[in-house]
Order: sequence, then structure tokens, then C-alpha cells
Amino acid sequence: MLDVTYRLQIPHRPGQLARVTTVIAEHEGLIGDILTASLGRDTTEREITVEVRSSAHAWDLAAALNALDGVEVIWHHDRAFMRHEGGKLTIDPVRPVTTVQEMRDVYTPGVARICTAIAENAALASRYTMIGTTVAVCTNGTRVLGLGDIGPRAAMPVMEGKAVFYKQFANINAMPILIDTADPDEFVDTVLRIAPTFAGIHLEDISAPACFEIERRLIDALPQPVMHDDVHGTAVVTVAAAIAACRHVDRRLDQAVVGQLGLGAAGFGIASLMLQGGAARVLGYDPDERSHERAREHGIEIATMEQVLAEADVVVATTGRAGLIAPRQVRKGSVMLALTNPYPEIAPDTALAAGAEFAADGRSVNNVLGYPGIFRGALLSGASQITTRMKLAAAWAIAALAPDGELVPDVLDQAVHDAVAEAVRRAAIEEGVGQEDRAPAGL
Amino acid sequence: MLDVTYRLQIPHRPGQLARVTTVIAEHEGLIGDILTASLGRDTTEREITVEVRSSAHAWDLAAALNALDGVEVIWHHDRAFMRHEGGKLTIDPVRPVTTVQEMRDVYTPGVARICTAIAENAALASRYTMIGTTVAVCTNGTRVLGLGDIGPRAAMPVMEGKAVFYKQFANINAMPILIDTADPDEFVDTVLRIAPTFAGIHLEDISAPACFEIERRLIDALPQPVMHDDVHGTAVVTVAAAIAACRHVDRRLDQAVVGQLGLGAAGFGIASLMLQGGAARVLGYDPDERSHERAREHGIEIATMEQVLAEADVVVATTGRAGLIAPRQVRKGSVMLALTNPYPEIAPDTALAAGAEFAADGRSVNNVLGYPGIFRGALLSGASQITTRMKLAAAWAIAALAPDGELVPDVLDQAVHDAVAEAVRRAAIEEGVGQEDRAPAGL
Repeated sequence: MLDVTYRLQIPHRPGQLARVTTVIAEHEGLIGDILTASLGRDTTEREITVEVRSSAHAWDLAAALNALDGVEVIWHHDRAFMRHEGGKLTIDPVRPVTTVQEMRDVYTPGVARICTAIAENAALASRYTMIGTTVAVCTNGTRVLGLGDIGPRAAMPVMEGKAVFYKQFANINAMPILIDTADPDEFVDTVLRIAPTFAGIHLEDISAPACFEIERRLIDALPQPVMHDDVHGTAVVTVAAAIAACRHVDRRLDQAVVGQLGLGAAGFGIASLMLQGGAARVLGYDPDERSHERAREHGIEIATMEQVLAEADVVVATTGRAGLIAPRQVRKGSVMLALTNPYPEIAPDTALAAGAEFAADGRSVNNVLGYPGIFRGALLSGASQITTRMKLAAAWAIAALAPDGELVPDVLDQAVHDAVAEAVRRAAIEEGVGQEDRAPAGL
Repeated sequence: MLDVTYRLQIPHRPGQLARVTTVIAEHEGLIGDILTASLGRDTTEREITVEVRSSAHAWDLAAALNALDGVEVIWHHDRAFMRHEGGKLTIDPVRPVTTVQEMRDVYTPGVARICTAIAENAALASRYTMIGTTVAVCTNGTRVLGLGDIGPRAAMPVMEGKAVFYKQFANINAMPILIDTADPDEFVDTVLRIAPTFAGIHLEDISAPACFEIERRLIDALPQPVMHDDVHGTAVVTVAAAIAACRHVDRRLDQAVVGQLGLGAAGFGIASLMLQGGAARVLGYDPDERSHERAREHGIEIATMEQVLAEADVVVATTGRAGLIAPRQVRKGSVMLALTNPYPEIAPDTALAAGAEFAADGRSVNNVLGYPGIFRGALLSGASQITTRMKLAAAWAIAALAPDGELVPDVLDQAVHDAVAEAVRRAAIEEGVGQEDRAPAGL
């Protein structure tokens, strides 16, 4: 699937856009935004975005549109490529240097006084440099989205995307750092050596089980917060979705038996946080036996898929396997969250028809709801780590803002991110890992 | 010395500012910018910047100003600290994400198509990510300005300053990377592992001799340009100054005997580039014998300080030792560039009185004239390294724009940086290390 924007010249008369949309419908394109790009006397130019199946499908549709009398396709492009031209991040001076005096302030001789002050009192670095508001988004590209091990360079667009939302939702500077090694020792050594540059370390798209060891060692060694987003950020948002789903059917997650299908990085994180969040029991299933020991150590009961589906009040599936769950396996009255994208383990309508009381897929469960506010809360409180209590505070804050019938709130709603940050900040202070009045300058 | 800004309330009548400036003069303060901050009916508020000797001196002056009838010091601060509050760099989205469609473009599902494209063709990374326009400014803080080994974190303000000018003068994203090790092997390993993130590696403030080994190994191992600015950037700007100085007295550098006092990182770089640039001979002096072997390997003749001063037509001093050169040691008709800041080896007036034909100190020789354009030229041509020819092209471009009587052009003049970039780009293409039409998107 891809989103293609078609720039079309269309006669400026009633009914013309209807002809165009009809052709798109006949070709099974799903219409998104329609913008008027220019308005002439006889013709208009429109940019119509259409979700198509493939590049070939996009060309077929272009030909069909061109064949319409009076309609011309000026260009059509994959929107994602248009939007990525030149990259998605920019590093800029906070203020430009326009006078001799300003150069003396930001560079020699003035800068030497700041360096001296920090050398004498390291804590001043978070006041007089960007360090206090900057997070590294570190990856080796060994497990990127659903694409697998594509290496660090090809993972860059995802890292830049993460960084875009860090600034937009949490006012945090985030810098992608691509680390060219699959070896956990080398990865850890590299991050430890560059760590003084950053107030926090965000790990991203690192394959299991190496990701667990890497995160554990970095947390133990570093004074600043470290979090693997695919484990914990995803877990926070998924637990929030489960809390909201239970609320919609008047259940309580902390009295439920939870079933987790898939115990990879994300699934393990979800199952662990469910248990830490008070679920009565958590049953886990994964065909890969290497995942079992870690799960058991964290109190997750290993079971067959049939057992999980038969016993769990709330089922979360993150298996990557579309259509895995048959309708006959759905327990009556259960809550079914089949989160694999873009095709879930069972379609919500199918699950409901089979007797689930609530069912949803993963389309709306966006982990961008979690990490920006989590790190902002940690940095605002000067927390040395991101604890379970902080993660659960984030999950409850997100769940509280989910509208009726929805699993999670709108990711573009700034109020959600602010609420997450404040909940995490307060949790850190209450737990004693953070403090009041520790916010770095500029955050 | 520090630049302090005083915010003063002053009666709004003729003669009042004169009283204030007179008091500043009596206290031996050197006045910089004077800005009117607010204008009332009876009083004005002014911000007056004064160069003072010390913090104690600043307080004395504040007391004297407060004692003036009708004058009140509202506050006074070290300007550098004011300017550094919250840091000097910001990392931002090129465009914010405001709609669901935009989120689909920059994040899932759109981003996966970009990742896949780069995985299939690595060269696309410089078109669809920030990699092509981003340079790492790497340091371990072992030799920062004149401050010595203050460690990586205290070096951060200098790195941010370098990055400010990268964007302002060369439209390059520059990210400071603090590397927490003094061991060259560990430093090299770290940079190699994070190198896929960046189109270029700028090394900064690393002590000699480790800096030479680090730079050599990185140049050999990496496909992108690597440059230690304290060696090569400084050398480019100093050679430019020497070319301009020779021009002012109708000499040619390529027929001159050059003397280099001080063979540390900067001095060695200058002496080497002088020789590569065509100087007839280069004599070098340094009391530290460990610097001699490297110098000799590069064709520099080791001599005593007396020999250097007696034989050289053009003397460059970068010893860090104020007043090192006695007037009787100045050769008649020589060109004397005593570049140690803020107090040179010999004052220009003293050198001229002692018989030098041209003399200058290092106040105007700012290495910010070099590196932004050098790296921009390298990136624009897709050069795999920064060669001697590219450095000399930069030096000649800078020298060509030095006004009559000045060593170098105004560092705030954008045309200089553009000229350096174009000269370097063309040199890279002529030498075959770069190519036409290789500019990354967005540069």
C-alpha cells in the first residue's frame, strides 16, 4: 500500500470532480486529502491523495484519469518520498550570530568562560548547553518496523521521524545516532562513550534478544534515563489501550486475566507491564522457545495459544501474523486487541461476531503517544531512570484521555503529550528518582 | 577579560550618557555596544557592554555607576552566560506534522517505503535523510581552546559554537558528539561505529599527538571526509593570512622562507600546508622534541628559535607564549604574524618599530573562516576526502578577499564562505576526488 498524490488539471465546472472520484473508486483507490492547488478561469488544479496497492496500480490509475475528457495528470508521486526529500530534521542556531559582539559571546573569547564554569561544576552543562534537552535516538537497524534487519543507514528515516515528534510534542532535541554493529558489547561501548552528549538515551529498532541485554547494561551504567521504545514505549501505549478497552466494557484490568500472543520485544514489554500494572495473571504464548525463560523470570505464565485464548479476559496479539486467530477460538465476552499492522490477527468485526465484547485492531495504537511525554517527564524531574511506576503513570494518563469507544486519544492532540509528561514527572518525584525544580533550561 | 552588559536607568537629559561613559573610562572599562532598551518620559534604560578584567572589576564598576546621581544599575551580567542559557543549538522538524496524512507520510506506513528504498540503494540516504547534509563535530575535550584537558562535557559550548557557524555560513547540520575517552583506539572505534549517521567528520580540540593518529586512521577507514579543524582549518586560515600579508608588501609566499614557531597541532598543520603551498623552505622551532620527528617527516627543517627568526622572510608564531619574541630578534624587512591570543608573541607595533615590514597579531585570524566552506565544498562535490589541493584552494579564496591592509576578510561576510565552498568544490572535481552534480538534497 502507498499514498500517491495526483496533481490534476480539471475543467472548472460542476460535476468534474465527481467524474474523477468515480474513476478512482472504479479503480479501487481509497481517497485521502483533496486540495485545490490553483484556480483558473476554465480549469482548476487539484492535488488528490489516493491510497493504492502498488506502484503499478498508481500508474494504471494515472492512465485512467488521463483518459478522462478534459482531465490531465500533471504529475503523480509517492507522498512519502516527496515529504522525505532532503531529510526531516534540521539543526539550527537558537539565534543567528550577526554582530562582532555576538561572535565574542558564542565563540572566543566568551565561550571559554562557559567551558571553565562547566569544568568546575558539571551540573551547569544542562543550563548552558543543549545537553539537558537532548536525547539520542540510537539504533543499529537490526529490527526496523516490519522490515527486519536492514542495517543502520536504511533505518534513518524512522529515527528522524521519532525525532520530529520529540520536538513537536515534547520540545526535546532528538538526534538520530546510527550505530554500525550488531554486537551488543560494541553497541553498549559506543553508547557509553558518546553518552555525555545527551540527557537521555532512546533505543530503537534493535532486535531481540540483544535489545534486552543492551538496555539493561546501559541502564546500569549510565546516570541518565535509557529506554528501548519498542519494548517500553509500545507497552505503555498498549496497556493504555487495554485500560481504555476494559473501561468501555466496565471491567478492571487489575482484576483481569491477560493473554499475550507474541513475546518478542514488544510482546514481552506489554506482558511485563500488564503484570506490573496489576493484572491478576498474565498468560503468554510464543512459538519461539527462546523467549520463554525471560518471560517466566518476569512472572508470565507460558501457555499454548489455545489456552491463552480460552482463559484470558483480555487478549493482546502482537505476533506479526495476519489472521492467526480463528473466530471459533474467540472466548465469549472477551476483550480482543489484535494489534499487528496493517493486517491484524483477527478483524474487529469478525471477533465481535464471534462473541468478543470489545475488539480493535492496531491502526490507532500509535506508540508516538508514549515516548515524547515519557522522556519529557523524566527530563523535567531530572530522573535518573524511567521506572515501572513512571511507565504506568504514562499509561493511565493516556487511557484517561481516550474518547468513548476509542482505544487511545488523538496522537496529534498536544494536551495528551502534556498530560503524559506531567504524570511521569509527578510519578518520578513521588518515587524519589526525580525532584521538583530540576527542569533543564529551555525545556 | 570578560564582556559584561550593564542595564542602567539614566535620566533622559543631554549629558547623562557622557557621565556614565566617563565613569566607565575612569575604571578602565572598554565600551562595546550601547543599546537603548526602553525610553521613558524622564528616564531611559540602556544596555551598555563593557570589557572588564574580572568579575571583581565588574562589581566595582557597577558600584561606581550606582553611585552616580540619578543612575541605577538594574542588573549586570556576563554576556556569554546570558547568550548560552539553554544552549546554542536546536534540532527541529523541517516541517511540523499537523495532519493525519502528514503523519502517514513521515512515519508509518510511509516511512517504511523510504527505508526499503535506502536498503536497496544506499546512495538514496543522502537524498531522503539528513545524512547527506550533516557533519559530526567530535571531541574528547583533551585540548580545548587555551584551557587544556577539561574533558568532553565542558567542551560542549565550543562544539555548539562550531555547529552554529556550520549552519549559518554553510547550511550544514552539525551535531556535537562528545566522546568520553582519551584513548585513541577507543576514540577511533566510536567514531567508526557512528559514522553512518554523518556525511562528514569534523574533529575538534583533541590533544597532540593522539589527534594525528586519530585523524589518519579515520581518514583511511571512512568513505566520507574527515578533518581535524585545529590542524587543517587553522592552517588554511593562517596560510591565507600569510598570502595576504605577503601581497601587502609585494612578496610571494612561494618564493619565501617561512619560519614556524610552535609545532603543536596548529603549528604543525600550518608549517605543512606552507610547504605544500609552495614555500621555498619552512623552518620550524618547538622546545618539545617529541614534535620534531613528525615535522621532519613532512619536510620541515628543525631549527633553534634564533635561526628561525634570523632566516625566515615570513614568521608565524603559535606558541601560546606572550612576549616570546624580543624586538632585537626581529629581522629587518620580515613579515611577522604573532598569532597567540589574546597576547601575541610580539605586539605588531613593537615588531614594526624593530624593522618588520608587516606585522599583525591573531585577533582577526579566526578559523571560522575556514571549516564551514571547506566542508560545504567537500559535500557539494561528494568528495571522499579533503585533500591538500582543496585546502590550498580554500586558503587562496580567503586571501583573495582580504581587504587592503587586513590579514583576512570579515568572518561575518557570507560571500567569503560561499567563495571558499566554491573554490573547494571545484578543486575536488579537478582533482577527481569529487564530481559535478553530486550535491545532496537540501544543501
